[in-house]
Amino acid sequence: MSSIFGTLFRVSTFGESHCNGVGAVVDGCPPNLALSEADIQPQLDRRRPGQSQLTTERQEADQVTILSGVENGRTLGTPIGLFVPNRDQRPGDYAEMEQVPRPSHADYTYQMKYGIRASSGGGRASARETIGRVAAGAIAEKVLTERFGLQIVAWVSTVGAVDAGMIDMDAISRERVDQNSVRCPDASAVPKMMAAIQAARDARDSLGGVITCVCRNAPVGLGEPIFDKLEALLAHAMLSIPATKGFEIGSGFAGTRMRGSRHNDPYTPKAGRLGTLTNYSGGIQGGISNGEPVYFRVAFKPPATIGREQSTVDFGGRPTVLQAKGRHDPCVVPRAVPIVESMAALVLLDCVLRQEARCGRDLLPC
Amino acid sequence: MSSIFGTLFRVSTFGESHCNGVGAVVDGCPPNLALSEADIQPQLDRRRPGQSQLTTERQEADQVTILSGVENGRTLGTPIGLFVPNRDQRPGDYAEMEQVPRPSHADYTYQMKYGIRASSGGGRASARETIGRVAAGAIAEKVLTERFGLQIVAWVSTVGAVDAGMIDMDAISRERVDQNSVRCPDASAVPKMMAAIQAARDARDSLGGVITCVCRNAPVGLGEPIFDKLEALLAHAMLSIPATKGFEIGSGFAGTRMRGSRHNDPYTPKAGRLGTLTNYSGGIQGGISNGEPVYFRVAFKPPATIGREQSTVDFGGRPTVLQAKGRHDPCVVPRAVPIVESMAALVLLDCVLRQEARCGRDLLPC
Amino acid sequence: MSSIFGTLFRVSTFGESHCNGVGAVVDGCPPNLALSEADIQPQLDRRRPGQSQLTTERQEADQVTILSGVENGRTLGTPIGLFVPNRDQRPGDYAEMEQVPRPSHADYTYQMKYGIRASSGGGRASARETIGRVAAGAIAEKVLTERFGLQIVAWVSTVGAVDAGMIDMDAISRERVDQNSVRCPDASAVPKMMAAIQAARDARDSLGGVITCVCRNAPVGLGEPIFDKLEALLAHAMLSIPATKGFEIGSGFAGTRMRGSRHNDPYTPKAGRLGTLTNYSGGIQGGISNGEPVYFRVAFKPPATIGREQSTVDFGGRPTVLQAKGRHDPCVVPRAVPIVESMAALVLLDCVLRQEARCGRDLLPC
Amino acid sequence: MSSIFGTLFRVSTFGESHCNGVGAVVDGCPPNLALSEADIQPQLDRRRPGQSQLTTERQEADQVTILSGVENGRTLGTPIGLFVPNRDQRPGDYAEMEQVPRPSHADYTYQMKYGIRASSGGGRASARETIGRVAAGAIAEKVLTERFGLQIVAWVSTVGAVDAGMIDMDAISRERVDQNSVRCPDASAVPKMMAAIQAARDARDSLGGVITCVCRNAPVGLGEPIFDKLEALLAHAMLSIPATKGFEIGSGFAGTRMRGSRHNDPYTPKAGRLGTLTNYSGGIQGGISNGEPVYFRVAFKPPATIGREQSTVDFGGRPTVLQAKGRHDPCVVPRAVPIVESMAALVLLDCVLRQEARCGRDLLPC
Repeated sequence: MSSIFGTLFRVSTFGESHCNGVGAVVDGCPPNLALSEADIQPQLDRRRPGQSQLTTERQEADQVTILSGVENGRTLGTPIGLFVPNRDQRPGDYAEMEQVPRPSHADYTYQMKYGIRASSGGGRASARETIGRVAAGAIAEKVLTERFGLQIVAWVSTVGAVDAGMIDMDAISRERVDQNSVRCPDASAVPKMMAAIQAARDARDSLGGVITCVCRNAPVGLGEPIFDKLEALLAHAMLSIPATKGFEIGSGFAGTRMRGSRHNDPYTPKAGRLGTLTNYSGGIQGGISNGEPVYFRVAFKPPATIGREQSTVDFGGRPTVLQAKGRHDPCVVPRAVPIVESMAALVLLDCVLRQEARCGRDLLPC
Repeated sequence: MSSIFGTLFRVSTFGESHCNGVGAVVDGCPPNLALSEADIQPQLDRRRPGQSQLTTERQEADQVTILSGVENGRTLGTPIGLFVPNRDQRPGDYAEMEQVPRPSHADYTYQMKYGIRASSGGGRASARETIGRVAAGAIAEKVLTERFGLQIVAWVSTVGAVDAGMIDMDAISRERVDQNSVRCPDASAVPKMMAAIQAARDARDSLGGVITCVCRNAPVGLGEPIFDKLEALLAHAMLSIPATKGFEIGSGFAGTRMRGSRHNDPYTPKAGRLGTLTNYSGGIQGGISNGEPVYFRVAFKPPATIGREQSTVDFGGRPTVLQAKGRHDPCVVPRAVPIVESMAALVLLDCVLRQEARCGRDLLPC
Repeated sequence: MSSIFGTLFRVSTFGESHCNGVGAVVDGCPPNLALSEADIQPQLDRRRPGQSQLTTERQEADQVTILSGVENGRTLGTPIGLFVPNRDQRPGDYAEMEQVPRPSHADYTYQMKYGIRASSGGGRASARETIGRVAAGAIAEKVLTERFGLQIVAWVSTVGAVDAGMIDMDAISRERVDQNSVRCPDASAVPKMMAAIQAARDARDSLGGVITCVCRNAPVGLGEPIFDKLEALLAHAMLSIPATKGFEIGSGFAGTRMRGSRHNDPYTPKAGRLGTLTNYSGGIQGGISNGEPVYFRVAFKPPATIGREQSTVDFGGRPTVLQAKGRHDPCVVPRAVPIVESMAALVLLDCVLRQEARCGRDLLPC
Repeated sequence: MSSIFGTLFRVSTFGESHCNGVGAVVDGCPPNLALSEADIQPQLDRRRPGQSQLTTERQEADQVTILSGVENGRTLGTPIGLFVPNRDQRPGDYAEMEQVPRPSHADYTYQMKYGIRASSGGGRASARETIGRVAAGAIAEKVLTERFGLQIVAWVSTVGAVDAGMIDMDAISRERVDQNSVRCPDASAVPKMMAAIQAARDARDSLGGVITCVCRNAPVGLGEPIFDKLEALLAHAMLSIPATKGFEIGSGFAGTRMRGSRHNDPYTPKAGRLGTLTNYSGGIQGGISNGEPVYFRVAFKPPATIGREQSTVDFGGRPTVLQAKGRHDPCVVPRAVPIVESMAALVLLDCVLRQEARCGRDLLPC
């Protein structure tokens, strides 16, 4: 297991779905940052289940406590312990799965890798694992916002087969995203997305989707080629989120079909730096941020746990029919929005610190 | 700069396009492996320019020398130094670019990040950087092949707008891939791809593409959730390759449009383990390999350096027209095939060693 | 701040002296280990203050709770969260120190490094920080004991100017060490040591000392030359303990005065391996354990916080006289014994896992 | 094998005693540093054998070549490849040792750990391994000197039983150290040391010794508690040097015999910061540099390879008598002086970069 992320701003997460609780230790947070639970709770609230009838019915308050590292409302530069207790546990829901690995879930691979697995729920593969990331990401984001006015906004751009239209990446805000429970800023697409989710729920089935994320005001110079290019770190971070299947930076797969003469982003003077007229690069060139908005897309598969009957085999290879009883989202993408934002914040702050180790506080503003 | 990759099998690469040479140090290679330059050279030959009229005319023999770590044809367990001298240098080709950052290239961001950059060619952002990866990857691959019969095969599945048809991932081989210079195993697509590349070359323009890669016989249990899930490490590795814009594991973005009941891979007994009837998961569940083939796709943008005139500005913000003079590929994807394979090998061997630290040599065969 | 230790068995500690509590997250613990709080508590009890009149009067139960990673008494292979609440806090004791950095304590350097520091007590530089290490070390030790019968025993070999006589490193046990509160197995030295500590206490002064530690039954092959030689990792671990000033492996500084012909350890056949007739090497040759007992000594300075008046200056450079009011040990070495053992366990288990990544479970027994 | 050192300024070394050569890759060197081979060669010259009749007769020019990372005499911020070819190889000298592990050498442990070892000489355990460290350390030192006027000076303070007298740590310089071949600045001790070395040579035996090192003008704030305290990193670095047996920071083991009231270093105003009246702390408090000179001592055992006959056993356990034939130093400490300095430089620069990631370029001067 490798539950530590980052080089200088390092997050160590812990907790299964049905133990005492989940949390994280943040090592390397800059000192003297104003910080309290109130800075962290909002993203946890956006992530938690039970926000609307679209999501799982499991009710968790998910109240975070800062265990250490903060005194008189200021970070000390010491490790910040974060803890969220588990409350609404119903292990009985999972009894059937003891003998039968759920298709496309982690039951089989955890058992094979570790020789043991949590007896109920997904254990560490449960979505509750992401609480530690989101709590840590909220801290990283606060540093980035205070120092650079950096803005990270993610939204749902596809649910199943329903695509949102063009979104203005310069203007989109979290307030706008949160205006509907599906977290899609294209008002015309929302009813179709909600209908698709409801239909999947009715069919005891599940739906995937795509989240788009933009990071505005990221300073120039982030990313550590060769192997820690900014897009490589973002891809790593995003593909570490449960249920993700793909990542695109800038033009992504569509960009492969363009010619270089059109795909290239010509330079133009901007305030205090060079900018680009287009941004197919997604704000990154040569693995290093160039001051333009960094944007990317993340693919989420349909959740593996569904209420429909599935023909499969048990651990012994005997044919069986599985029908999940637990409480599960038909579509996780609306709740995954703050997770994507948090992982982006973790990557960007780590890159800021690595670059400041090189150039001091002379980061060129975007 | 972060030119070190891996946790236990660690590769440290070095070298710009126009210095004495490029290479790598491999730390953590298993001892007692039969190894000579002949094991490494074939992948370097597949990567090097000048293989056909489709690629850059720059001629480099790219002969690798093992500097250390091998005695009497066996690895000692000590670091393996690898070196490939640079020979065919024409720095004069790059004089114009001193004042003008090439659009969508790394000139501007390297200059901003480091305050200095190589005066000619792409420096460390040049494709020659990938020689160190390929040499190291060939060693990793040899370990994997000898121990598990693991097979890694990549091929070109798209060039510009030309898509290859369905490829049989269970049967595809490097020999088959290398039957044509575009490295696409779909014979019917090859002429269209070659025509597209020729057209781009005639227009002094460039084309992107997609590479698909399959890893067969990967043992069960590879990948270190939470943050070092196998797909996260692969995404990191692939997005660290120059010019990449996207990564998909298994069903990828297309999978987001499927319902869970169809996307789920039901289990079925296979020899000595459970297998799956379908493989939308791409051989990974919960971040851990499940014994099925691991496959993924990597998007490459059209190369930034083109012969056509481009309107842009110089470092001072003054408008100018740039026309590249150097020798450059109109389409890099055929040469990128061994790079993708090499990065996959580096990831997989590192995961094998990390898992063996947990379970010893009892890795469950696929 | 860097509160993470280890490569594969990784410990992330957190907590100041006067926040909610202290703890650790252990990432990479082998799965399927029988584990409960009862395995961890004994070493915490040996470490905690208030064990005898020789130590600080601060009373802390230091009861550990396992937050995650264990189910039905077995480790899952997932991160193990460990937490010990702070209870007996008297921040008022430290008011005076707000303006005056205590000589040879961390007040000044923390303030200069972080621009802020905990307002009371030592913050992260307090001895309470070591609780996380000891809890994690107890887990590591359990793995080592079960798999190899590895035994780690440390004891006080010097207090101030009082040296213990020769100790039989093959026979010494924790039970023997704990027979007196000074944790020195040389019965004849104990009264002198206790008298010295009492005299220092009476003088409101403090005393240093030396701890010797032996690790028996460590398998052959631990340690990762070049830079992670076993003695280098042990030195790193020991010098990271508060108040340490020196480290010796095997013959140490005394060995520098011997000739090679005497210092060399000749080989002799032992059961299933080669052993040595003498052990000036301290069980390590070329950075790798050779199967003989690994032993080393750690120097602890006299604690910086003393009740006696000290002439110094405040943060503004103005002369002042400081007299500490808090509760402090006149001599920390008896309580440091389990800390030394814990750090040794963390190093050894990490080395075991790193070597098993190379050779599987074929570690040669000592 | 773990041949990579550092967090941000990372050195990857390679090379055995009898392969093509030895070297290093330096990743993370600050860009725009004036650098050529002439900056590196002097320390290599101080390290190389054959400097005087006191050292081994093996003749190696040890000329370093910069392979990459420097253009027009300036570092690019990219990895710096460094290479020194092996020239004076006489593998025949080592034939006898194939069957007999040299006592207290690495032959046995390397064989057990890796299942193979270099057939001649010490392989990676040879002193030639240190060339890579010294070359990398010279680069680190140049950065530290240019930015902070930091001065690192090491010298021989003990040879066998001959101790040097008190050295003025504020005044000592490399020029002074190099005035005699034993590298001891106490002129009165030099003849005795030389006589002791000559006597050991005549007896075909070897001698150990102690090196003291002082680092002046280190900025305040270096070191990353908890686990990467400055003294912990220095201890790690020093104990990774071949043949080392001990490390002391500041007062070291002698300090354990002092009372706190005497050992504590009272503060006093110094230019722009607080200084201390005494320096038993060795320039470090709470794991963080305080602006006073950082000084430490390193113990070196007598070299294991001696010309005298030694009764031992072969790999099969059969008694034999071994007599080394190769060329070896009777006392390595004079040549180890630049190695100690280089490792100190690697540690200090890495700490500088880690601290600048926190505070920018506002490091408080000492």
